[in-house]
Amino acid sequence: MKNFNFWNPTRIVFGKDCVPLVGEQVSCFGQKVLVVSGQASARKTGVYDRVLQSLGKAKLNVVEFSGVKSNPILSHLRQGIDLARREAVEVIVAVGGGSVIDEAKAIAAGAVTEVDVWDFFVDKAKINQALPLVTVVTLAATGSEMNWGAVITNEELQQKFNISSPHLYPKVSILDPTVTFTVPRNYSAYSAVDAIAHVIEGYFTGTDPATPLQDRLVEGLVMAIMDATEKIMANPEDYDARATMMWAASLALNGLTTAGIGLYGFPNHMIEHSLSALYDIPHGAGLAIVMPGWMKHTARQNPGKFAQFAERVLAIRKPSPDEAAMAGIDALQHWFEHIGSPTTLAAADIPASDINRIAENATMLAEKWRLKAYTKEIISEILTLCR
Amino acid sequence: MKNFNFWNPTRIVFGKDCVPLVGEQVSCFGQKVLVVSGQASARKTGVYDRVLQSLGKAKLNVVEFSGVKSNPILSHLRQGIDLARREAVEVIVAVGGGSVIDEAKAIAAGAVTEVDVWDFFVDKAKINQALPLVTVVTLAATGSEMNWGAVITNEELQQKFNISSPHLYPKVSILDPTVTFTVPRNYSAYSAVDAIAHVIEGYFTGTDPATPLQDRLVEGLVMAIMDATEKIMANPEDYDARATMMWAASLALNGLTTAGIGLYGFPNHMIEHSLSALYDIPHGAGLAIVMPGWMKHTARQNPGKFAQFAERVLAIRKPSPDEAAMAGIDALQHWFEHIGSPTTLAAADIPASDINRIAENATMLAEKWRLKAYTKEIISEILTLCR
Repeated sequence: MKNFNFWNPTRIVFGKDCVPLVGEQVSCFGQKVLVVSGQASARKTGVYDRVLQSLGKAKLNVVEFSGVKSNPILSHLRQGIDLARREAVEVIVAVGGGSVIDEAKAIAAGAVTEVDVWDFFVDKAKINQALPLVTVVTLAATGSEMNWGAVITNEELQQKFNISSPHLYPKVSILDPTVTFTVPRNYSAYSAVDAIAHVIEGYFTGTDPATPLQDRLVEGLVMAIMDATEKIMANPEDYDARATMMWAASLALNGLTTAGIGLYGFPNHMIEHSLSALYDIPHGAGLAIVMPGWMKHTARQNPGKFAQFAERVLAIRKPSPDEAAMAGIDALQHWFEHIGSPTTLAAADIPASDINRIAENATMLAEKWRLKAYTKEIISEILTLCR
Repeated sequence: MKNFNFWNPTRIVFGKDCVPLVGEQVSCFGQKVLVVSGQASARKTGVYDRVLQSLGKAKLNVVEFSGVKSNPILSHLRQGIDLARREAVEVIVAVGGGSVIDEAKAIAAGAVTEVDVWDFFVDKAKINQALPLVTVVTLAATGSEMNWGAVITNEELQQKFNISSPHLYPKVSILDPTVTFTVPRNYSAYSAVDAIAHVIEGYFTGTDPATPLQDRLVEGLVMAIMDATEKIMANPEDYDARATMMWAASLALNGLTTAGIGLYGFPNHMIEHSLSALYDIPHGAGLAIVMPGWMKHTARQNPGKFAQFAERVLAIRKPSPDEAAMAGIDALQHWFEHIGSPTTLAAADIPASDINRIAENATMLAEKWRLKAYTKEIISEILTLCR
């Protein structure tokens, strides 16, 4: 096991009907509140109104900022920062999924500095402070509610880049599984893929092989996510399944599964970021396309770990590690299809002739994410396996 | 899944040779430091000197307080509180295992109030503040380094009672697995039993059965602990095994495995507290005696969960849940013996004729711990299965 620091100060308020607790929580951090939200769904489902009611009850002064896109974009982020500054808000409340929370984090960091916010994303400036952030989660997927990262797309440059800083941990995140009852089938599937991808990246790329505890945690998370997703597909209002999925998604990217595994990368996310930057497809769908190809490519070098995954998570036993690895990858790909996700470029109407262009785009992140082994050629090879 | 709040703000600094980082960490919280330690082992192994050196390098003003007993006692705790007040220390550093950390927590709470410290243990007073605490862990077992609880024995009243408060989370815990290389075989075994007991209590007593994710986390932790302990027994200086054990022990009682499981109890700990209060045996050894008996008693009502444990953790398959449950309990008991722990009262030289007296003592905690179903008769029945 490698040396690590672990610190995760986010307070989780989890459970049925806990949205009305938001006002009391927010009032610990300030009186003037910027409420950040997406395009429509939180309004449709009534969650947004319940948040505003609770903030009103706590006598907080609310400024609203809506319209965050799925795959949030820099121009909208800049508007949010301007508004937060102009109104001198003291605390930010995000009502939404990962996109809304990510943009809210970037607003929180951008509102308290003269630095141009994109400089944080291209490592030209460092985040030294941020406004306190409280989140009300409406989609269980990205884990942003319990971590220190955020991803924004610079739509002019077609760059989907990330920031991370201990200042970006939400102070409090409110997770009410009933809020996710209305998440449609396809987004429920993409969410499962995303959460699985989060734990699998570290599991398969960590440089220290001696991490049996972390392996067990990842395997347990994946089994729980798959089982819960089956139940959600059968009954979208299965509370326990939605709750399991929601808590699993938070634990999948809160530092728990990667503590001690050494250096690790997010190569699937890196390639996917190019898919969603170029084609604006849902992040989880993009991951379901990239992962099987990436796994096939990578298992050639390290079939043992893939065989372990196949055996422990999918109960697959084969005479050789190579066979077990490949059977496990096939089974996972079939499961992604079974829950309703595309798993090939073709299924998402992305022509194979674009592979060169996607690979070109992905190399921009390879440097930033210290994945230099992923040359344009390697990425093209992987994408060829994703056709 | 039941509603829950999760918050764990302890910062973990984990890894090889990280003890010298203590000075820098402590200096964030104050200049005048009370260093709390045990009877001898931290001095013998050199860890204590390395801590003092690091504190000296950070130019901190050190007051030493040693002699904490395994199963720490109230009279010594009172001395520590007096010293902390007299010297007006600003921060506490615990160098030791769970006993030292627990007493340091109680000193931290007791030093900043006029309330008699035992009032916190008998729920006559509430902890509203505490001095900041930094720990340097020398034994991977109790999880105290990453939680909000502490246990102290009132030796006059023969009561081993606990406190818990969010103010008791250590600010920073320094976990260097190499420090545990010198932990003797028997204490390495007791540590494994203790950590397993911590996760099993919630697993088998949680009131909500719909917690598949929490189940998977517990099962993964137990498998990792058992595997690491085998390796430690074969080679006490197996770094990765010691590291796995150390991190597993922290995760086993930091709130992770119990979040969402509803009400749950610590009946094994309750009965064991009476064993170690009356006979001063190591806590882990006491747990290895109590657990098989408690499990046999409890599996009669709920064999399904015990069968799940047997199947997933111990790869035991039997025609009926009852058979699987009992085979699993037997296998765990044999494993406790295999690593060198007593698993019966007789093996610890506790006469069966004392069962009445032990049960009498344990009922004192049953009320405090909301385990009223555990009457003297029930506890006697369980202890009879532990003979």
